[in-house]
Amino acid sequence: MRIHHLYSGGKDSSLSAWILRRIGYDVKLVTVSFGTLDSWRFARETAERLGFEHSVLYLPGEILERAVRIAVEDGHPNNAIQFIHERALEALASLPEVERVSDGTRRDDRVPFLDLPKARSLEDRFGVAYVRPLLGLGYKTIRELTERLFVVEIRESEELEKSDYEVELRHLLREKGIDPLEIFPREHYQSRVLGWREGNLKGKE
Amino acid sequence: MRIHHLYSGGKDSSLSAWILRRIGYDVKLVTVSFGTLDSWRFARETAERLGFEHSVLYLPGEILERAVRIAVEDGHPNNAIQFIHERALEALASLPEVERVSDGTRRDDRVPFLDLPKARSLEDRFGVAYVRPLLGLGYKTIRELTERLFVVEIRESEELEKSDYEVELRHLLREKGIDPLEIFPREHYQSRVLGWREGNLKGKE
Repeated sequence: MRIHHLYSGGKDSSLSAWILRRIGYDVKLVTVSFGTLDSWRFARETAERLGFEHSVLYLPGEILERAVRIAVEDGHPNNAIQFIHERALEALASLPEVERVSDGTRRDDRVPFLDLPKARSLEDRFGVAYVRPLLGLGYKTIRELTERLFVVEIRESEELEKSDYEVELRHLLREKGIDPLEIFPREHYQSRVLGWREGNLKGKE
Repeated sequence: MRIHHLYSGGKDSSLSAWILRRIGYDVKLVTVSFGTLDSWRFARETAERLGFEHSVLYLPGEILERAVRIAVEDGHPNNAIQFIHERALEALASLPEVERVSDGTRRDDRVPFLDLPKARSLEDRFGVAYVRPLLGLGYKTIRELTERLFVVEIRESEELEKSDYEVELRHLLREKGIDPLEIFPREHYQSRVLGWREGNLKGKE
């Protein structure tokens, strides 16, 4: 039972990858890149430390260009991130070898998030199962599980070495002479998993 | 990390109990009863076969009486089942030793189902975490996991030896001279887990 899991190296996508493995899936981590930066390397590094297979899925630069236009029009990144995530899931689900796709979206997320009609549409259009292990978990539960499992680094998004969509989105904004801080909220903290917590044998199974 | 899991002996509540155990929780199964029947014994039997601790939580008969009135007024059981499920979660969450509650509700369920405001309200009012391991899983995923794990018996609800709310609801309807088939849809199939699939070692861990 192979599953392809969209992976950023953050705690949500790492926790959901671990849950998928614990319930019997052969988990392949996939990080999206538009090729403007090699920020996917941080996800690769975390994937290797956690013992998962990892690959990079390159998406067309036009998707990032369009996301930048959306973010600038809105003055806010939410719809842009939602747009990229939907295209990333579709690109992954359309690969011939992919039967199951998953991500680390959670109950309390506003974006990226597929509502029920969108989730079913993804499954129907591409003939895949779409699995979200964290959807039924609140922040307390996610916190207690990640604290038990991982060593996590939490920093402001601008400083963190990460592989999520934001990194290339911020980069392209800067290239276009736009300060990302005009679009992204200040004090926006994000996480990166550095490895298993010492003595944690569960994760290594 | 102890969690109290509402349990009917069906495949959804059994699968979610197994997932909770696989991700590190000490799972206590709890079956609700109004004391009108001993149908909770079927859940107890399945719980024992699967190797989980099990207890019965008795709810006041007035809740079942009110659910019957709702079902008769509606001519349909959905709101009645939703009503019982919310009261069951509240009763469980209000017990002093309970810090985490869970159930087997899934993405494609209409009832019983707590929307996000209701889920957060349950957590806030009782100071618990509410965990739904199947919320992010579609029917394909649930089917492949249950087929791999369990021997399942699927029968029409009227015939199945089960422990869910329906059994006592149907019983009280009959006591009041109302044919449950006027309220519940015909050809309504339900499942009961009979045990682990042979050779499945994962479940027994």
